Amino acid sequence: MNILPVALTPKRVLLIGAGKSAALKAKNVYESDCVLSIVAKEIKDDYFKNKEVTKETFSLSHIKEHDVVINASGDEDLSKLLWENRKRQGFLLNCVDMPKYCDFYFQAVVKNHDLCVSVSTGGASPKYAQFIRALISAVLPKQSKKFYENIKAKRERGDTNIHQNSGKVLLIGCGTGSVDNLTIKALKALNSIDIAMIDALTGDEVTNLLPKECKKIDVSKQKGCHKFSQDEINEMLLRYAKEGFRVGRLKSGDPAVFGRVFEEASFLTQEGIHVEMINGVSSAFAGCLAGGIAPTLRGLSAGALIVSAHLKESRFNDDWIELLKNFPYTVIVLMAYSFANKIVQKAKETGVSLDIPAAFVSKIDSKEQTTVIGTLGRLEEMAKLCDKPAILIIGKSAAEAAKMPHSGKRVILE
Amino acid sequence: MNILPVALTPKRVLLIGAGKSAALKAKNVYESDCVLSIVAKEIKDDYFKNKEVTKETFSLSHIKEHDVVINASGDEDLSKLLWENRKRQGFLLNCVDMPKYCDFYFQAVVKNHDLCVSVSTGGASPKYAQFIRALISAVLPKQSKKFYENIKAKRERGDTNIHQNSGKVLLIGCGTGSVDNLTIKALKALNSIDIAMIDALTGDEVTNLLPKECKKIDVSKQKGCHKFSQDEINEMLLRYAKEGFRVGRLKSGDPAVFGRVFEEASFLTQEGIHVEMINGVSSAFAGCLAGGIAPTLRGLSAGALIVSAHLKESRFNDDWIELLKNFPYTVIVLMAYSFANKIVQKAKETGVSLDIPAAFVSKIDSKEQTTVIGTLGRLEEMAKLCDKPAILIIGKSAAEAAKMPHSGKRVILE
Repeated sequence: MNILPVALTPKRVLLIGAGKSAALKAKNVYESDCVLSIVAKEIKDDYFKNKEVTKETFSLSHIKEHDVVINASGDEDLSKLLWENRKRQGFLLNCVDMPKYCDFYFQAVVKNHDLCVSVSTGGASPKYAQFIRALISAVLPKQSKKFYENIKAKRERGDTNIHQNSGKVLLIGCGTGSVDNLTIKALKALNSIDIAMIDALTGDEVTNLLPKECKKIDVSKQKGCHKFSQDEINEMLLRYAKEGFRVGRLKSGDPAVFGRVFEEASFLTQEGIHVEMINGVSSAFAGCLAGGIAPTLRGLSAGALIVSAHLKESRFNDDWIELLKNFPYTVIVLMAYSFANKIVQKAKETGVSLDIPAAFVSKIDSKEQTTVIGTLGRLEEMAKLCDKPAILIIGKSAAEAAKMPHSGKRVILE
Repeated sequence: MNILPVALTPKRVLLIGAGKSAALKAKNVYESDCVLSIVAKEIKDDYFKNKEVTKETFSLSHIKEHDVVINASGDEDLSKLLWENRKRQGFLLNCVDMPKYCDFYFQAVVKNHDLCVSVSTGGASPKYAQFIRALISAVLPKQSKKFYENIKAKRERGDTNIHQNSGKVLLIGCGTGSVDNLTIKALKALNSIDIAMIDALTGDEVTNLLPKECKKIDVSKQKGCHKFSQDEINEMLLRYAKEGFRVGRLKSGDPAVFGRVFEEASFLTQEGIHVEMINGVSSAFAGCLAGGIAPTLRGLSAGALIVSAHLKESRFNDDWIELLKNFPYTVIVLMAYSFANKIVQKAKETGVSLDIPAAFVSKIDSKEQTTVIGTLGRLEEMAKLCDKPAILIIGKSAAEAAKMPHSGKRVILE
């Protein structure tokens, strides 16, 4: 494809024709606030009824000072004449539906005041260009005219900050690892921050979206001889926000689900820092659908309980195991992989049936994603067939998975 | 802003200069597969070390057959000379950082083989253009060269279908109502379907994204004298998929959470239809963060149970109420608004403490979003301060909400 996408700065545009395809081009030009003259023998489309149209047969003398000419008359002989004269008269030519007589093509455009996004497939598929245009249109922030005046005035003063409310913290739910499972709000937030404090399991695909100039701090990693404590993280968030930065706190899944959102948000709120919390897709539910397990299923499970097997300082949480006796809900256990053995042991001790259907879903939303379906009593055997991190799903609906679609690898024990 | 975004089709592009800003323009042109010649007195940027550069002082005779000229030499006198000669010699001019000598501006570009998306703010803020470019880049499907060859070949045969796997059903989690709370995967799915079967609470903002030509069926509405039954919905999904359509099943929130995903997906899978399930943001967790309530909170709640107060045929589900006695987890009740009175009554009967903190979060993710925080015993009074639909959050962490940020209106009862 040898097309060069540019923004032309024409002084005057001349449109030849006043039919349906001319109307489309006229709209395109008017959207760009360019000066447009129209010449046509007759008006064939209602769009032109209240427009100023020179009703004459076109001749080269109409071109005068116009530096862009659009032939929408459908007259191929005229296109040829224009093509041969364009260099001499110094204008750019577009002849509708005649690519060989085009110095440029029009593109599918999305506009929001000063912002203009154009999409082209180099003629491969106008339908695909429309599909892409629709995706882009949904993602573009809808800003006011004032917004663009502000960022322009700021830039002229040498201030390139384009986001309001600097000095704030965004707790961003980063979902399960793929960009596709991010929300649009999270995507915008990730692209807007000056500093990112990143949790484990957030994933490279998501952190690669951060702006180049964004400072990245992995708070899940060892720092010298210890990990960052919650207090240290809180103090860093506070300090950076007070210094006027937009600080992003990147959390895997949904921050509402074991995301320590209270610890951070209440601390910062009490310190007077503006905090925004952004939901994400939780691995609890992503894991269920990946494995083909419906956590709520009429007649089998009237709800879902989400717990974590892992507490502070790698302690094992077994509070929930006793509940499994005749529990009418699906239980989804996060961070369960390393505790398979302990879970079975505790279930035996408390008299929970080892025949309750259960599944591990490991490495959710990655190429290695694996589901292993069995029973509570066989967790250790099941763990050997997958890897951590994994969620554990316990309940009758796990036994119905064979009837369901799933993604990734799936093993159903006999 | 009077700029006209177009795709130029130049035969030959001439670049004057071989410094840093020339290198940026050269990359831009090479990306477009245009033929580029370079003329420069000397090479000032390593980028040009292994490029073919005519090492001469530029003169107008270098222009010859070039129809686009880029002056990246920084020489303003040369820019003026080129500007005065461009019409006569029939070329388009861009002089870097000298807008008054530009027939066109370059734009921020995202490319994927034949697909080219360009972003301009008409000079208002290059930084904002970069931000938008990054958002777009994350959303664009990464397709192979083969994909573009296929859609081009199809279009030439008159087949405008751009999506593979037609004849499939996508169960799409549409989140809480705003486009911002949609996942990117859901956004792409919504834009790709031929037929949409839409549940209640999906919201106009989301359904407005559907392509114009997409057939929309609201299965939550009365149809003649009755609502669509689950069997009728299943049969429609099956029939349309068998006819070769891409059918979208639009569900509010996350389909895994009371989305009847099993009923539909297992039926279609057994009929041999390809089904894809797409998670969404659940109103359960969106409601918690909107109200400033952390459903999991160390020391107060070691997990979250999600249930629904509403069962088939408007029946009231009260299974979960007895659990509230010393339950160590937050309980999130969907569709709870209309049952405030019945919930309190049942709590009294079963001896559940009426002092447990509780909150309604109503009209989540809308302008009317309202949180009312009180206790289980005061649900009826709380319901009067908001509206349906609402989720009910029960547990100790609801009493900590005052310390937390929230969105929308919030009332905390004394």
